[in-house]
Parts: sequence; structure tokens; C-alpha cells
Amino acid sequence: MAPIITLLTDFGVESTYPAQMKGVILGRCPGAVIVDISHGVPRHDVRTAAFMLASAASAFPEGTIHVAVVDPQVGSQRRMLAAEAGGCIYLAPDNGLLTLVAHRELLPCFGGGAARLVAVENRSFFRTDVSSTFHGRDIFAPVAAAVASGTDIGDLGPPAAGIAQFDFPLPAKADRNIDGRVLYVDPFGNLTTNISKTLLDGCDPARLKVRVLGAVIRGLSRAYSDVAAGALLAYVGSAGLLEVAVNRQSAAARLAADIGTPVSVSLAP
Amino acid sequence: MAPIITLLTDFGVESTYPAQMKGVILGRCPGAVIVDISHGVPRHDVRTAAFMLASAASAFPEGTIHVAVVDPQVGSQRRMLAAEAGGCIYLAPDNGLLTLVAHRELLPCFGGGAARLVAVENRSFFRTDVSSTFHGRDIFAPVAAAVASGTDIGDLGPPAAGIAQFDFPLPAKADRNIDGRVLYVDPFGNLTTNISKTLLDGCDPARLKVRVLGAVIRGLSRAYSDVAAGALLAYVGSAGLLEVAVNRQSAAARLAADIGTPVSVSLAP
Amino acid sequence: MAPIITLLTDFGVESTYPAQMKGVILGRCPGAVIVDISHGVPRHDVRTAAFMLASAASAFPEGTIHVAVVDPQVGSQRRMLAAEAGGCIYLAPDNGLLTLVAHRELLPCFGGGAARLVAVENRSFFRTDVSSTFHGRDIFAPVAAAVASGTDIGDLGPPAAGIAQFDFPLPAKADRNIDGRVLYVDPFGNLTTNISKTLLDGCDPARLKVRVLGAVIRGLSRAYSDVAAGALLAYVGSAGLLEVAVNRQSAAARLAADIGTPVSVSLAP
Repeated sequence: MAPIITLLTDFGVESTYPAQMKGVILGRCPGAVIVDISHGVPRHDVRTAAFMLASAASAFPEGTIHVAVVDPQVGSQRRMLAAEAGGCIYLAPDNGLLTLVAHRELLPCFGGGAARLVAVENRSFFRTDVSSTFHGRDIFAPVAAAVASGTDIGDLGPPAAGIAQFDFPLPAKADRNIDGRVLYVDPFGNLTTNISKTLLDGCDPARLKVRVLGAVIRGLSRAYSDVAAGALLAYVGSAGLLEVAVNRQSAAARLAADIGTPVSVSLAP
Repeated sequence: MAPIITLLTDFGVESTYPAQMKGVILGRCPGAVIVDISHGVPRHDVRTAAFMLASAASAFPEGTIHVAVVDPQVGSQRRMLAAEAGGCIYLAPDNGLLTLVAHRELLPCFGGGAARLVAVENRSFFRTDVSSTFHGRDIFAPVAAAVASGTDIGDLGPPAAGIAQFDFPLPAKADRNIDGRVLYVDPFGNLTTNISKTLLDGCDPARLKVRVLGAVIRGLSRAYSDVAAGALLAYVGSAGLLEVAVNRQSAAARLAADIGTPVSVSLAP
Repeated sequence: MAPIITLLTDFGVESTYPAQMKGVILGRCPGAVIVDISHGVPRHDVRTAAFMLASAASAFPEGTIHVAVVDPQVGSQRRMLAAEAGGCIYLAPDNGLLTLVAHRELLPCFGGGAARLVAVENRSFFRTDVSSTFHGRDIFAPVAAAVASGTDIGDLGPPAAGIAQFDFPLPAKADRNIDGRVLYVDPFGNLTTNISKTLLDGCDPARLKVRVLGAVIRGLSRAYSDVAAGALLAYVGSAGLLEVAVNRQSAAARLAADIGTPVSVSLAP
């Protein structure tokens, strides 16, 4: 079966940088199937990229090699990591990008499995000339091609004891209340929270209340079209997390909400 | 030969949603060749998507599976359809998206062929957990993978008697005049009308006049560069339909034209 | 090994035109691996496309077929070219797009090799119906599929004696000074100059000075993060050319610099 390599970067959908990574990969592993997760990560926004990576990767089959390059420290002494988690391989700079992948307990919806971690240091897998500003092409792409061709990540360098993590808020549940936060704002302004659907188990979806920045939403919807165009709704989204949206409009704009905005849920008695 | 699956959505070129569909497809049909038609359909604009689908699909070989997900009613009781038309398979919500594909007589340039229609209801082809907001990943992607792997669309559900259609204007030809409308505005502001080149058969291209919102264009051009930069021109476009453009600028902006804008043609005696 | 075909156009990442090219290619060469270099070339900007093509193509393996369609004269009598350079094949309109590919001596970093040039005229490789406005789909795509299927470019038409070139500035080196210009502004506002790293050989990187529009940068950096956020830096970029950037911001915006802006380097004694 052809190996799948995914790419997630902040290089921009209009730049040629993702294509340069693909050229290097195909030159070294001609049978690789390359899939773009996105090249539209907001520039240097490692936290958003970490969410995009974990949520998108969960749709790919075991054995997929995920390459994530949002790397404002490129060329400095920051480490590069290879991680094995959930049957897939992840390659990324050690800047927090792998937080949600390596610590799946933070978001149970993404599945379990401890991570094997390796520091990518073995230059024999790199391109001969490594630029100081484009490790995506000169290091990550050839390393991904090597792994896709059968190289064990243990050959890429020494084990890494831990990884850099960004400060990741966990929801707090007490009595009949859950205090959470917005984790991710998608391109349509839908707000994804850190409140997993498992936290809502056993409560009546019709009777709970979701509060965000003064707005109160009563009950969970199933479909955007359950409410009028322009109305707020809350629902369990496609990542298994509570989301808040406005039907056909942007909840982020409507509520002036952003990553980190508190979201609370009152469970009905 | 590897099956081709195309994707057309309004998920945005920067979102990870198209990638999630691809992960599901490749997990179930590893040999599929996936091609993005576009993920930049204006959000919820089913009418524009219907044109983009029909015009782009006509360039693909027989046997291609086209998946189109512009689906503001996702999660509601709207039907999902599988259609066979022109030797290809189309999967889409039943909201008008397939109007031009199923009724090719509306735009003869897209070729003929009656459509076989099936309501997609057989949950055995869906993912185990179907979210209420992302049927592209949880229903359309696995169904497309099943069809690409050899499943007949008759196995997807019961026959569907008809499909939802949006109101689709037909050009009116009388004497030496054709009254048509703008069907589609491309990203460059070129205006595609519903006036097929066959309606212009037998008239002298140099002597006809095209009228749009007060502007009069005399004669058909062949190339944008036949006129000065900034000048209006009319020509038979790449979809076999009359188009109006401004060389190196946007005709939509210049004329304040949009979908539905009347366009008339006077044929010379 | 599956043939690789790359596409570079100004059709826009949201349009369906690139997909239409892919449909035609896959219909004629089902095993082709198609890679987008970019569809976000600024509309009609042949000069920028020429740089994007040459810099991105250098990352692809020998045998790759590069199709570049930035073609404001489409439908006119402008020639179309097939070129062999550096073990790869290039297909493009003859409007300057191939300047840097055919004349690699202009930018030594892109490698050497004289070009074989052919005028693409043999209509037996074109689609049956060739539109006047979309030669990407009707001529370049089927010709690329033919070449990917083994057609020698000599069969595409007669030899072409020369190609259209845009005016390409060469850096001037005198004493301890190099006068160059900005060649390319990437989507992040980084400025790529025409000053190759070989021109800097033998000088102390820490002691040279780069001047752009009144700003003076002392010494070359290795990483963006070598300087504070918001500070200017100069470095040898991933194309082997001197670049000027602002860490985490746009140098083009900061300096009001654009293609053609003079950049000079003083080498230390």
C-alpha cells in the first residue's frame, strides 16, 4: 500500500514552498501519496496548528506520516521531533505543535496511545545542502520520505525524553457546571471548545445552557439549520467537542470571541 | 486503472475539512486518485457550486466519482443523492447542486445522458460515528470510497424519483434576438451566460451585438488580447457559453453585474 | 516510475480551472502524479511566475514535466514552447515565463544545462475542440499528458531558435561592492534578490552590510529568530540567493520595497 504523507504548514496556499517539499519527497519516495492538511495556518500560530493537526490526523489511516512545519524558530537550535502516536508518525519542530498528538488524554476524542519520541538529528537523512530558513524542504521532507520508504524513526536520532508543550487549558467540572475555553476558531468563525462530549454524558441536551461572553444558548442543536439564519447555536462538533456557531454567520465575529475565551455549560438537574 | 474521486466544497482552501475527507477516502480506498475541483465555493452558494461542478466535471474521464458538498442543511432531514450521468457518478446533498448535471439539456455544452438517481440511505457505508455537522467526512467520503471500490450506486439506497432543482433560467430566442442571463461569475469577474454557442450558429460573429446593463459590445472576440487592456469583450468561453469580460480587469466590477444579470444578443441580418 | 506533472498558473486557488487541466491529464495519462506548484501567481504577472517556476522546479526530480500557464495573450498568435532543461521538460507560452529556466546562468543557484526548445504546434496532441481562452486545458494539459506517456518533445513541433525573455537584471560586482535588485517578493513580504551566495564567497558574513532603501543591515543572520521580532535581517535564503526579511513581519511593507528595488552589499575589507 502506498505510504501517505500529509503536510501542514503556515507557508500560505499561494506560495511555492509546499510544492518544493513535495518535489523532494517524490524524488526520494516516488510512490508516496501526499495530502495537504492545510497550508493556511495563521502565520507562526503554533497553537492553532496543534489543534488543526490533531483533529485532521484523526481521520487518516494507521501508518500515515504527518509532517507539520509551523516553525518560527527555524534555523535556531530548537529540536526537531519524530513521534509515534496512535499508529501514525509525526514529524515537527519541538515547539508545542505536537502537544495534542502526544498527550491525547488532553482531548479524549482524539484517541489514546502513548507516544514514542525521537530527536531528529541524523543528518544522513537530510538533503546535502540544508538552508537555514527552509527545513521543511531540506530536513522534514527527506526525513518523511525516508520513513515512508521504511526507515524506523529510531534511526533518525536519539530518544527524546519530553516535548515542548504549550499551556493547554483543561475544562473544570464541578457539580452541575463545566468551565471550558475556546480552543480553536475555524475559518468560518465557529468556536471549538475544550469540552468533550464525554463530559456531557448523562445530561439532557435539551436542558443544558451554554454561556459565552454574555450570550446564553439553551439546549444543544444537531444541525446549523435547526436555528434561524443569524441565530446562535451550540452542538457537539465533528471533533467530538462542544462548539458554538451562528447559522450562516461567524460566531467569532458576533461574540468577539477568540482562542482562550471562557465557555461555561450548566447541566440541568 | 485507479479510480478518480473529485471534491467540491465550500469548506475553504485554508480549512482542514477537505483533508479529513481525504483521510477517510484513502483509509477505505488506498488507490484512489483524489482531485480538488475547488474548496473555494462561496459559502453556502449552491447555485454557483452547481455551475462549477457541471463545468469542471466535463473535463474528467468517464468513471470519475464527483463528490460535491455545499450543504447548508447538513444534519437536517434533507436527502443525499447518488446520480449517474454521462458515465460518471455524482454524490451530493439534494439541494439543487446536481441541477445542471442531471438536466444536461439545460446547458447542451455539458453533453447529454439521462441520470440514474439513488437516495443515499444505507448506513452500512457510512462511518460508525456520524457527526451532525460534517457529512462530507462521515457519509460522502466513505460512500465515495465504496463506489470507487466497486459498489454499485443501486446498493446505496432506494431509487429517487426526482431531485431538487434551483430555478434555472433558459435563454429565449426570438427573431434575431436572444435574451439570456449571467449564470456564473468566475474569480476574475468574467461573466458566463446561459447562451450556448449553438444558439449563435449561422450568424456572423463579427456583426452581432451583446448588451449588458447598458454596455454594448460589437462582435465576438477570440482572445482577451484582441481588445485593449480595460476594454470590454464578448467571446465563446471555455464552457461553450457566451462570456463577457474586460481584458485584464473584472467585468463584474466594471458593469456591476452579478448572477442573474440580463444579457441580450442581437444577431445581424 | 509514475511521471510527475507540475502545474503553475494564475488561475486562482479558488477557481475550477486547475481541476479542469487535471481532468484532461488524468483522462489521457491515468498514472500521472500531478503536483500544484501554485495557482496563486498574481494575475498576469509573468515575471513573478518565472521566478516561482525556476525556484520551485529545482526541488523536483529529473524527468518532471513542468506546465506553466500565465498567459495574458492566450488565443493570440503568441507561440507555445516545450523546453528541455536540467533533465526536466517545461511547457509554457513564449512570453518570458521560461527566462530563468532556459538561461540558468542568470541564477547559478538553479543549476546548469542548455535548453532544447520546440515550438508546440502539432495539433494532433491537442484536444479536439480548442477554446480560444483556455489553452491550459485544451493544449498544455493534453500535451503534458502526451509527454508523460513517452512522446518526445521533438514530435510536438519544429525547433524554436530562441525564446522571449523579460529584462532580467544581473548583479554588478565592483571592488568591495555588489549592486543587485529585488527579484521576487514572497507571500510573507520576504525580499529575494538576484545576489547569489557565490558572489559572497570569501567575505566575512558578520562584517558585510546590506543596504535597501535607506535601511542598513549589518552582517548575515542564519535564522529569522536571530533578531528580535520586528527587526530587519539579511541571510542567504533557500534558493541560494541573498534575502532581506523582517522577523515575523513583512519586509516589503516595512521598506516599501518591490520587485526591482535596488539592494547593495558592501563586503568588509
